[in-house]
Amino acid sequence: MLKPLLCFLFIGNLSAQELFSEDFIGQVTVLRDKALTDTTAYDITESLTTEVGARLGGSEGDARAVKWAVAKFNELGFDKVWTEPVTFPKWVRGKETAEIISPFPHEIKITALGGSLSTPKKGLKGEIVHFETIKDLELADPSLVKGKITFISNRMQRHKSGKGYGLANGARYMAAKHTADKGGIGAIIRSIGTDSNRDPHTGGMKSVNYDQQTNITTLLKKGEIVPAGAISNPDADLLVNVLNRGKPVIFKYTLGSYWDGEYTSQNVIGEITGSEKPDELIIIGGHLDSWDLGTGAIDDASGCAITMAAAKLIMDSSITPKRTIRVVLWANEENGLYGARAYAKAHKNEMHNHIIGAEADFGAAPVYAFASRVSQQSLPVISKMSELMAPLAIGYVGNKGNSGADISPLKKLGMATLGLYQDGSKYFDLHHTPDDTMDKVIQEEISQVTASWIVFVALAAQYAGNFGFNLNQ
Amino acid sequence: MLKPLLCFLFIGNLSAQELFSEDFIGQVTVLRDKALTDTTAYDITESLTTEVGARLGGSEGDARAVKWAVAKFNELGFDKVWTEPVTFPKWVRGKETAEIISPFPHEIKITALGGSLSTPKKGLKGEIVHFETIKDLELADPSLVKGKITFISNRMQRHKSGKGYGLANGARYMAAKHTADKGGIGAIIRSIGTDSNRDPHTGGMKSVNYDQQTNITTLLKKGEIVPAGAISNPDADLLVNVLNRGKPVIFKYTLGSYWDGEYTSQNVIGEITGSEKPDELIIIGGHLDSWDLGTGAIDDASGCAITMAAAKLIMDSSITPKRTIRVVLWANEENGLYGARAYAKAHKNEMHNHIIGAEADFGAAPVYAFASRVSQQSLPVISKMSELMAPLAIGYVGNKGNSGADISPLKKLGMATLGLYQDGSKYFDLHHTPDDTMDKVIQEEISQVTASWIVFVALAAQYAGNFGFNLNQ
Repeated sequence: MLKPLLCFLFIGNLSAQELFSEDFIGQVTVLRDKALTDTTAYDITESLTTEVGARLGGSEGDARAVKWAVAKFNELGFDKVWTEPVTFPKWVRGKETAEIISPFPHEIKITALGGSLSTPKKGLKGEIVHFETIKDLELADPSLVKGKITFISNRMQRHKSGKGYGLANGARYMAAKHTADKGGIGAIIRSIGTDSNRDPHTGGMKSVNYDQQTNITTLLKKGEIVPAGAISNPDADLLVNVLNRGKPVIFKYTLGSYWDGEYTSQNVIGEITGSEKPDELIIIGGHLDSWDLGTGAIDDASGCAITMAAAKLIMDSSITPKRTIRVVLWANEENGLYGARAYAKAHKNEMHNHIIGAEADFGAAPVYAFASRVSQQSLPVISKMSELMAPLAIGYVGNKGNSGADISPLKKLGMATLGLYQDGSKYFDLHHTPDDTMDKVIQEEISQVTASWIVFVALAAQYAGNFGFNLNQ
Repeated sequence: MLKPLLCFLFIGNLSAQELFSEDFIGQVTVLRDKALTDTTAYDITESLTTEVGARLGGSEGDARAVKWAVAKFNELGFDKVWTEPVTFPKWVRGKETAEIISPFPHEIKITALGGSLSTPKKGLKGEIVHFETIKDLELADPSLVKGKITFISNRMQRHKSGKGYGLANGARYMAAKHTADKGGIGAIIRSIGTDSNRDPHTGGMKSVNYDQQTNITTLLKKGEIVPAGAISNPDADLLVNVLNRGKPVIFKYTLGSYWDGEYTSQNVIGEITGSEKPDELIIIGGHLDSWDLGTGAIDDASGCAITMAAAKLIMDSSITPKRTIRVVLWANEENGLYGARAYAKAHKNEMHNHIIGAEADFGAAPVYAFASRVSQQSLPVISKMSELMAPLAIGYVGNKGNSGADISPLKKLGMATLGLYQDGSKYFDLHHTPDDTMDKVIQEEISQVTASWIVFVALAAQYAGNFGFNLNQ
């Protein structure tokens, strides 16, 4: 995976001397190293998780998070702080129970997938039909599924990059839809997660159709999807063990979740105004919302905190950023990417000033690699970043990088992006579960992440050229 | 900790040649090594957790577990299988909810401590008064506690031996009593556990007074204890973070637990009859009941399975045990040690035939040490056991050992005991939580434990002498 790109690193070392003064690189180096023991990101994460906690889009916690974010930006001394409205359909979680009725009764822990409709109040009961993968369900003869509750037992694999998530989460996205299409009555999936706790992982599914062009949202009706929930890895193992006895397995579950009209939340934005090019923006941030089960410490209080802290530490240092650093805390990423799409829509005519962007949305564990998606001409800047990241044990992995989900609508509009890749080995133990809490954030680790963001932001704000607006990739 | 006791090991090597034939030691060695890849213990654990699962004393699962155990002993081919009644007050868990009301609202996961009385149906609301340790609460001026909900935040420490448990669980035993004594209205403790999951740890507390001599049980009345629950480590951390803001913290919780008359369960006993001394008994076993939150895989399906498997493998081998191997699956250990006390009461006049005993009740992780509590004369046998355990990476740690809780009433009556010490590093991540499930049991590990029990049981059943009835220690 690690491609050092030696050829242009050499060019980069030469060019970088013209791009940045020695004094400036010295200032960045000092701040990077200072950040390694600075607690600002840790403290902001603690503040959001303690003073707000769970903040599902549309919930009372969402409203409190918006107030918290405005106050925190002001407290940190950002030059401008404002909010921009984000309207979305509001989804509410209800009562959640599940059990194996026979042949052996067991209580099962279940959580509704985001967007799931409710079961009947007294619960939904039926025989389990077991598929190992979502593909097996997709290809199954409808006669196998009709009248039954489907169960997908495929287990997500652990990887540093988190790539197991993309391979596994098709079950979460599509189980309810495929089951409905084949006449099934309910869908249960093994949680998309790598832990062995009894807390199931929630997460969005394809129960909301949205058209990216027209931004029209359509909720699927009953019959187009079935009520869908995730059960934990241990419960999925138990259900497999019960199924292995070869007798019909009767399962019952209750989900009280429902859609409840529209809600308007806010993207919260804080800026540190550039000294020479105040209209040119370095876009960084995280998403302010979280799932409702935990306090959203790693997803994504940490991302908000890392980017707020990086900007704050630059502001308080001897560095005077030439470009404006805009920190965007996006609304309702989890249940449909609404904040990111609203931001892109509101700012689509200002993309020439959106110089480069990146989101932190992968927890609080150390950055081990970074990637760019910039023009060839600006690669020497990336090379200089690489040089300054190396002491943090971060390697450059190429110019076809990804960034966070909230960056994707801006990427589609042509914005250059950067990705700072954090160690995801443990991320999916916690992701979208009640266990996503502050105790999982290690101060030394989140400080290393902040230090890497400082390198990126400081150089991007200082660089005289562009990173390749309208890359057409 | 590891004291090899070299002096008597030497004596042991000499004496053991007289105690056991070379053929017999060869048979034990072969069976020990065969057991390392045998899956009997794993399969029995899987069977109990899959076909029964949670089995709190007095619950419907308890009744199913008794039926399962009788059937399993018969299926395994034990010579005699019977049950002995165990009567105890039945405790039922109810609805459980908790929240921090102010200054920052948070949902908190709570579980009633075993024996807790219920709160009012609408919940119990009050200001938190925070103590770091149970000792701090015990010494506190009542004026600090009166009308408040106490919270003990002390965290259990992780050790291979599990010794952190004994140091921490005073909070669980006594918080409700001390709080009531000082006029408090409720008691919340940080779970006695080493994990970072949101699943709180339940466990018994001193809400039941029993007199070991008369075997009279008295339930404490309302006012003598307050409703008491445990919250998870992450929630305790959060509560501490909220308390650190220095504002009054209002907490509310609901526990629906109650005592519901008496219930009669059964100790389930299986025997392999000795060929030469059928009346002399080697007592081994685990407890059949579990807490209700998980499927009781490590506590204590594993212990039942290890001892059943050790006896079964000896029975099926070329070894012909001279003494009877009695496997006792004790009822309701968790909520008051009722099965063990009933067994001791029923058999108190037969202690001369209870040659030596041991319980497996510490999960499924490998044995790393063993200890005895036997007469000096029988130490050469222990020495021979030590020699045969060494290839399993098990060291002998002396003649002042402990065994399981269910052995303690027999120990008081003078029975010699043995303790096979399993690695407890991860045990208290799972203990008394919903996460105590089958996926935590590793086949290679539980097989190593079974191999060590085979060495103990085979030698104890063969040895011509006694281990020291009525040690008066």
